Amino acid sequence: MRLDANGIEVLDRDDCLALMRSVTLGRVVFTDRALPAIEPVHFVFDGDDVIISMPPGSKLASATRGAVVAFEADAFEPGSRSGWSVTVIGEARVVRVATEIERLSRLPLRSWTPRGLGYFIRIRGEYVSGRRIHPTYLEATR
Amino acid sequence: MRLDANGIEVLDRDDCLALMRSVTLGRVVFTDRALPAIEPVHFVFDGDDVIISMPPGSKLASATRGAVVAFEADAFEPGSRSGWSVTVIGEARVVRVATEIERLSRLPLRSWTPRGLGYFIRIRGEYVSGRRIHPTYLEATR
Repeated sequence: MRLDANGIEVLDRDDCLALMRSVTLGRVVFTDRALPAIEPVHFVFDGDDVIISMPPGSKLASATRGAVVAFEADAFEPGSRSGWSVTVIGEARVVRVATEIERLSRLPLRSWTPRGLGYFIRIRGEYVSGRRIHPTYLEATR
Repeated sequence: MRLDANGIEVLDRDDCLALMRSVTLGRVVFTDRALPAIEPVHFVFDGDDVIISMPPGSKLASATRGAVVAFEADAFEPGSRSGWSVTVIGEARVVRVATEIERLSRLPLRSWTPRGLGYFIRIRGEYVSGRRIHPTYLEATR
């Protein structure tokens, strides 16, 4: 097990993607008018790429076109002080090919907004990193 | 109730801060070597400012010195398709005044890392925004 300078487990790519696949909600991190922005979204995987959906005209849809974004998912249990966080960094692109839109629309991606699904955005899983913390690490270093 | 273009409730500042105060884990969003970065952290409020703690030498501690960052907290229930997300945007500064460090160290801020608490970082609650979604909104627009 690889630990970082703060004693937190550093996860390899396969573990990162497996953990991320275990949840359905993540957060896309982007820049909106030169300021950091973050928005929770449902997502699915298409291979190692993250697929999200944005209503047309949303600031996320316009801000992420071709930009490099971060996409994060995590799960923490405050009681046991354990949890993990995984971040994918890659280019975000609106999917424009009709056959690909057709295929992606069959993936189990849900919308929480009344407007429903809009554009599909693909975030390339170029750089994947993640960390995990267990109560046992804390015990071991006390 | 104010709804955005996608039919999601837009929260006022007081509601945002009240919801954020109901949780103890958030995510700081910053720029790390020109790339978007996000890191889950414990936090407490000091007035309307968010206080987080970072081990000395962590990339977050160096990347956020004087930078404008976003700090987000959220809670979602996939079953009921309800939830909220609140984001604070403001300047992040390492706390250097001894009396202030002394005071902040009495706040209920916990560390999940074996290294424990390090620098305190204050994120000014300059710009606060949040949104909330209820299943009833979805019903109403079906």
